Order: sequence, then C-alpha cells, then structure tokens
Amino acid sequence: MSAFQKLIAHSKKVSHFDHLASIVGWDQAAVMPAGGAEARSNAIAELDVHIHSLMTQPHLGDLFAQAEEEPLSINEKAELREMKRDWQQSNLLPEALVQAQSLAGSKCEHAWRTQRGDNDWTGFEKNWAEVVKLSIEEAQIRAEANGTTPYDAMLDIYEPGTTSASLDTLFADVKTWLPSMIDEAIEKQRSSNILLPNSHYPTEKQKALGLEVMQLLQFDFDHGRLDESVHPFCGGVPTDVRITTRYDENEFVQSLMGIVHETGHARYEQGLPKSLADTPAGQARSMGIHESQSLFFEMQMGRSQAFIEHLARLATNHFDGPEFAKANLAKIYTKVEKGYIRVDADELTYPAHVILRYEIERDLMNGVIQHTDVPELWNEKMKTYLGLSTEGNYKNGCMQDIHWTDGSFGYFPSYTLGAMYAAQFMAAMKKTVDVDAAIFSGDLTPIFTWLGDNIWSKGSLLSTDDLVSQATGDVLNAEHFKTHLENRYLR
Amino acid sequence: MSAFQKLIAHSKKVSHFDHLASIVGWDQAAVMPAGGAEARSNAIAELDVHIHSLMTQPHLGDLFAQAEEEPLSINEKAELREMKRDWQQSNLLPEALVQAQSLAGSKCEHAWRTQRGDNDWTGFEKNWAEVVKLSIEEAQIRAEANGTTPYDAMLDIYEPGTTSASLDTLFADVKTWLPSMIDEAIEKQRSSNILLPNSHYPTEKQKALGLEVMQLLQFDFDHGRLDESVHPFCGGVPTDVRITTRYDENEFVQSLMGIVHETGHARYEQGLPKSLADTPAGQARSMGIHESQSLFFEMQMGRSQAFIEHLARLATNHFDGPEFAKANLAKIYTKVEKGYIRVDADELTYPAHVILRYEIERDLMNGVIQHTDVPELWNEKMKTYLGLSTEGNYKNGCMQDIHWTDGSFGYFPSYTLGAMYAAQFMAAMKKTVDVDAAIFSGDLTPIFTWLGDNIWSKGSLLSTDDLVSQATGDVLNAEHFKTHLENRYLR
Repeated sequence: MSAFQKLIAHSKKVSHFDHLASIVGWDQAAVMPAGGAEARSNAIAELDVHIHSLMTQPHLGDLFAQAEEEPLSINEKAELREMKRDWQQSNLLPEALVQAQSLAGSKCEHAWRTQRGDNDWTGFEKNWAEVVKLSIEEAQIRAEANGTTPYDAMLDIYEPGTTSASLDTLFADVKTWLPSMIDEAIEKQRSSNILLPNSHYPTEKQKALGLEVMQLLQFDFDHGRLDESVHPFCGGVPTDVRITTRYDENEFVQSLMGIVHETGHARYEQGLPKSLADTPAGQARSMGIHESQSLFFEMQMGRSQAFIEHLARLATNHFDGPEFAKANLAKIYTKVEKGYIRVDADELTYPAHVILRYEIERDLMNGVIQHTDVPELWNEKMKTYLGLSTEGNYKNGCMQDIHWTDGSFGYFPSYTLGAMYAAQFMAAMKKTVDVDAAIFSGDLTPIFTWLGDNIWSKGSLLSTDDLVSQATGDVLNAEHFKTHLENRYLR
Repeated sequence: MSAFQKLIAHSKKVSHFDHLASIVGWDQAAVMPAGGAEARSNAIAELDVHIHSLMTQPHLGDLFAQAEEEPLSINEKAELREMKRDWQQSNLLPEALVQAQSLAGSKCEHAWRTQRGDNDWTGFEKNWAEVVKLSIEEAQIRAEANGTTPYDAMLDIYEPGTTSASLDTLFADVKTWLPSMIDEAIEKQRSSNILLPNSHYPTEKQKALGLEVMQLLQFDFDHGRLDESVHPFCGGVPTDVRITTRYDENEFVQSLMGIVHETGHARYEQGLPKSLADTPAGQARSMGIHESQSLFFEMQMGRSQAFIEHLARLATNHFDGPEFAKANLAKIYTKVEKGYIRVDADELTYPAHVILRYEIERDLMNGVIQHTDVPELWNEKMKTYLGLSTEGNYKNGCMQDIHWTDGSFGYFPSYTLGAMYAAQFMAAMKKTVDVDAAIFSGDLTPIFTWLGDNIWSKGSLLSTDDLVSQATGDVLNAEHFKTHLENRYLR
C-alpha cells in the first residue's frame, strides 16, 4: 500500500467517526430530551478527543512527506492537498490553547444568553475580552504558519484561499452602490400594499407544504429527512442529509423559505461525488460555496416570479387565504426594510450587516482596534450603511450574534460571498439553460444538472477560485450580484 | 490513581462510545432513510472495532491483577467483578472466529428473510450448518474458560450465573402442570364472547393514548422518548431512553400493550443507579431481569383488572366503541390460544414455546443432537406441549425466529425466566405494598418505589441470585408463576 493509499484509508476511518458525530449532533438538536444533555456532552467530548488523536498521530507527517514523492493523478494530488490541509489544521494549535478557547467560549456564550436580553455590555465585555485575546493568539499562530495576516489566517478556516485584500475590493465596490440602492428600493415599495400573515397556520400543514416544496426541489428522501429544531440547520452525512426548520403557527413565511434554503444545502451534500465519499476531496468546497447553494435555492431561484407561482399553487393544497396569492407572496418575499438584526434582514440589506461585521472583525484580529472599541464602531457603521443608530443599544447591536461569543471570527463574510457566488452562477447558467422556462415548467432538472456538473460533483477537487472560474468563466466579482439586485428591486 | 480507579476511568471511556452506538442504533431503526444504510454500517463497524480495541488493550490485564490486591469496598468489589467479566468476554474469542461468525450470521439471516416465506428448510439448513458449527466452537471456548458445559457457557452471556441444571429443574416443574393448565383455561374461555378490534384506529390517536399510558406508568419524558420502528425495542441510554412501538391501524391491541411492555424496560433503565453511571455495575443485571421488568409491567400489572380499568378509561379520550369496555379489554388481553408462533403467543402458552427452544438449543450446543435433527424434534415437542404438528411446516416451526439465524443460542430462556422473576417480585411486593389499591388509585408510586429500591437501584451490584433473594427472600422458583397463572386463568 502506498503512503497515499494509507492516508486515504486513514481519512476514511476519521470520516466514519465524523459520521457518528454528525448523527448524534442532529439527534441532540432535533429529538433529544433535555435530560439527556449531560451524558451526551460527555460522549461527544470523548468522540472529539478520539478524532483529534487520530488526526495528530505522529506517523502521519512521514506519510505526507512520502506521498508527496509518489506519482499521483491530478485528482489524487487534490486529495492529498485537502488531506494535508485538514491534518495541518488539526495539528496547528497547542492543546492548551484549544482547551482554553473551549472554556472561554462556553462561558462567554452561556452568559451572553442572558446578558443580551439585559443589554449588559459591561458584563459581556468582561468574558468577551478573554475570547478575543485567545482568538488573536490563534490567529497569530495560524498567520505564522500560513504567512498571512492574522485575520486572513482565520478567514482561511472557512474560505480557503480567500484574503481580506480580495474582500476589501469586493466590498468597497458594494459599498459604493448598496446604500443608495436600498433607499431607492424602499422608496419604490412605499405605495405597495402587502397582506401579511394574519391567521393560524398549523404546523402539520406547514410541514406537508414544505415536503411538497422539497419534492419540487428534487430532494432525495431516500437519502435524507426533514425535521424540526430551534435553530434550523442542514446536518447528517451526504447519504443521509438531515435538514430542519422551525414552525411558528402565527406565520408561514420563515419556515417555507427556510426549507427552500436548507434544501439548497442538502442538494449540494446529496450531489457530492460518491467516488470520493469519506475523503476530504469529496466534501463541500467551503462555507461560502455551501451558502451559495442555499442562497441559489432561496434567493436566485426561490424568490423568482416563476418559483413563487409554484409556492402559491402548492399552498392551495393546504391553505386558503388571500395572503397566499402569488402577487402577494412575491411582495412578502421581496420586501426591503432597514433593521438592526442580521438574521431578520432581507436580501438587499443583508450585505450591509455582513460588511460591517467583516470590517470590525478584520481590524480586531489584526490588532488595529481593541474589543472595547466595537460598540462605537458598530454604531458608526450602522449609521453609514443603514442609517440606524445603535448607541447604547448593545442587544440589537454588537451583542446580537452568537458567532463572536465563541470566537468564530472570519465566518461572517461567507454569507455575502455565498450571495455573490450564487448570482454569478445564475448568470453563467443562463448562458446555456433557459432557467425561467425550467422553473415555470416545474421540472427543474436542467438547473440541477448544471449545478451538479459544475459545483456539486466537484467536491473539493478544485480550489474555490478554479471552481468558480471553470463554472462561470471568471473569478468572483460583485457585478452579477449588483445586476441581480437591480433587476429584482429597482426594475 | 489506583489500578481500580484507572479501570473505572477506562470503563467510562468505553461507555461513552457505547452511548454513541446506542443512539445511532436507535436512529437506524427509528428514523434513518433506507439510502443511509451502507454508510451507517461502515461507521458502526468502525465504532465496533474501536470499542473492541479499547476492551482488549494489553495493559488491562495488569490493571486487573493489581486492582484485585487493592483494598476495595463491597461495591467496588462488585464493580471490579463486573468490569472483569466484560473484559474477559471481550478477550475470550479469537478475532478470526468473531469475523467468521459475523459473516455466517449475516449471510444466514439475510437469506432466511426470503427462505422463511418459501418454507425452504433445505436452503436454510445449508447456511445454518455453518452458524451452528461456529457457535459450537464459541461455546467450547467459553466452556473451557468458565469450566462449564458448552451450553451453560452460552447461557452465561445473557444470564450470568444461570445454569442448565437450574433451568432443567424449573422447566421440569412447569412441564408437569402447564399443558393441562392451558387446556383447562381454553375450556373455561370457550363460551366467552369477545369483541375483537373491528374498526379503524388512527396512528395519531393510538400514539396519544400510548403517551397517556406512559404518563400513568411515570415514564420520565425529560429522559426519554416514544417513537416508531418495525420491531419495537427499548434503546438509548439511561439518561435518554428510547422506546419504540409499531402501529397497525386495523387494531390497537399490540401497540397499546407493547408500550406498557417497553415502558417496563425503560423505567428499569431510568431507575439504574446514577452514581454508577457509565460503569458496568451501574448497568442492568441481565436479560432475564430486564425482561422481568417489562413483564412485570405488561403481565403482572398491565393485565390486572385494576390496570385494565385505567386503559379503558384513557381509551375513551381517543376512541369510542364497545371493544374498549373494560370487561371486553380484559377478555382480549387474557385470551388463551394454542398457536405456532412464539411472538404472537399469550402469557399462558408462551413458556411452552420457550421450553421447547431451550431443550433443543441446549442439546445442540452440547453436541447431543445435530442441526438436521431440529425440525423433527420441534414437531415432536410442539405436539407434546401444545398439541400442534409442524411436520413439513418449517416457516411456522423451527424457522420462525431470528435468534438462531445469527447464533444467539442461550437467549430464549431469558423470556420465561423474566416471567417467573416478575411473578416472584409481585408476590414479594404484595407482602408490604397494597398493589391493587395503588393501581386502582392511579398513583402507582408505591409499586415503583418497591421496584426502584429492590431492583432498579441495584444495577449489577449483586449477582442475580442475590438480587432475587434479597428482594423476595427466596431464590427463583416456579411456584409464584404457577399461582399467578392459576389465579388469572383458572379462577
């Protein structure tokens, strides 16, 4: 057996334990009773330790050195690159730092759950100081290994190959047109009447409708399920993808489009290359590309007129009410509104929330600002980008997200990168696929064939830049996103 | 850290991986889509290999030798005994035999699923020959280590301390009175009119009723769930017990009493000593004691007049129909009928099915008979015990159960041992608890307190014989079971 083959066998072994982690993770979020939590945490911690010990076995370094001398095909080289990346990520941080981060993150997040409601910045800041300090330590260790700035090293965890130089360029462009576009769209919608949800929408009916929408989206129910959880997510494994949603019986808007969003994630997982299953090159490319698929489903396809007609048609199987009329549904799903809260933001204002966070976390990791500067910076940027003040309003300002409480700095850009990738994929797809006709017909196969061929089946064989270039003929640029938003909100 | 403490830490580590196995096992049976099966099998196989490697670590032998020299409390000694037993069981069989058994068992069971329907003894016999041969090999290795007969060594896997000498005595007694008692009961019921289920019983209503019955039985929903699966079982972990049932919308009889049965298993798990969680002495004592709890719930308590009144009362929340009248429900749940199929058998005929299997598997493992002798012996014994011929009827004869297809010889006696233990526990409980009054009142606390104090909280601290003696003042004898059956079926 060659060193490369030994590394593949080792990856598959690790992947089997990752499988267990995914399933018990789903179980914890979707079905586990509260009283099971403590024993479950202990079991998961044991599993994490075991996976970490597998990833840090001393003989792996020699195997990587040997494998790099072996004659490998292009795909095998990609596999080796991804395996090595995973191995380096696992071996980079001292055990003591990982443990300190885990403790500080848990403490900060746990306290945050009440501090946020109390608008208690002073209390939060005390715990968060430690989280930020340890994350900067992490960023510096990673930066030294990668030869990048600290923030770029954090970005690399979620978006391999993406740099703040490229994000600065992309976002600088967006900032030139986004604030005025938001104002213009709001002005344009001012006189429009929307009928908002105003009835009782039983969970069972919402679920039945959601399942029909998943069928339209060709979700493979032989390899996945729909369930409920407090925070919707896409979990499980590629052969058994578990998506969840949350039902609010006073409205249907969130759960319905939430299911479309998670189905996008799920189809990506279900479409990953089976021949590379259980190895790193067979996994999704990055958080941003993952989000591009959920946002392709939710925004590019899901909010198109043709798709909303399907939603309106399917809704009549379960509900009657003028709020489900297609023109009204379209208005609901394209309403633009400036707000404080990112997770409630619409397609148009969402990038403003992300750019704000990106600029702050970049400067925080690079030591340009201190964590105590964050509330003031947040307030300034909210005023600039969305015209809203958050002075003294921490709960709806810099304390609103969970991401920073446990040190996930570098994650936020993925959301808007995903939206941009999605727009660029749609523009490229339209060169060869009659997308509107396909959606209108109700047989979305041509769309999924394009995504399958160009994105899903590639796994992590290509770098993100190569994946995007090969699929669209160009590296990422914000132009397609801008055109998409203009067409939807200003025409 | 003493050797004993190291062994405890090691047991807890193994237990955390067992936790993962339990949860993904539940998932596989209760919620996993079919397409997830292959990847799941690979993940579970990897986990099994890892658990086995933990249990066979070479340094454990030294730790056991050292721990036996350390000063230990009575409970610690029990813990050491149980840990050592688990360790010995894991180290006894050569890897090659375990793998051969796994292959032969899978092959035989898989083919059996169609061969049974085809009544294809010739086809089955070819695969089964290998299963029996390997099980005899296993039994002989175990026998040599335990200093017992081969069959007693197999019995010891499920019922530590139980021997065929004691079973021969118990069952010889039962055989003197059971066949005539069955005839007498059937004769007594001949003129009785029963209204059988004859309507449509929606799953949702059956489930709602089942949940109410579980509440009456004080199932802790903060530490467990009710779900559905093809083969009902009790799984999960003590802090999160997963029971399942199967609904047939043409009847309610099976699912309703099935839930009572599984709740008995679940309360035992939920009542195990928390201070010994994740260690062998904190686990259930044996298969027979586990079955004693489910049968205490299902037979001793669940089929009592007072309990059936509760079932009739709760049923009116969901169903109306004369079949739910308490007198009719009592008739349904105490109907005696001679039949071919063990899993469909009633309380009174069930022991005949078990004794038949016990006598055959005992002689098979001890080399007294050959596997080709089984159909004829089955037919003879069915005629003797239940007056039914299975000549040429393999599918409803010796091919009916899954147990022997994968080599689980020694398991069957647990069912009837459980029924006998349950009767003896009830007789003992009645000395200090007014059981009928407790059931009648709907507050079953006094019953559960007795079971908690005498059985559940003991885990595996005592041997089975000591557990039964301390709880009832006597070792197991069949007299209580006989008296119980006489009172229920002949009075």
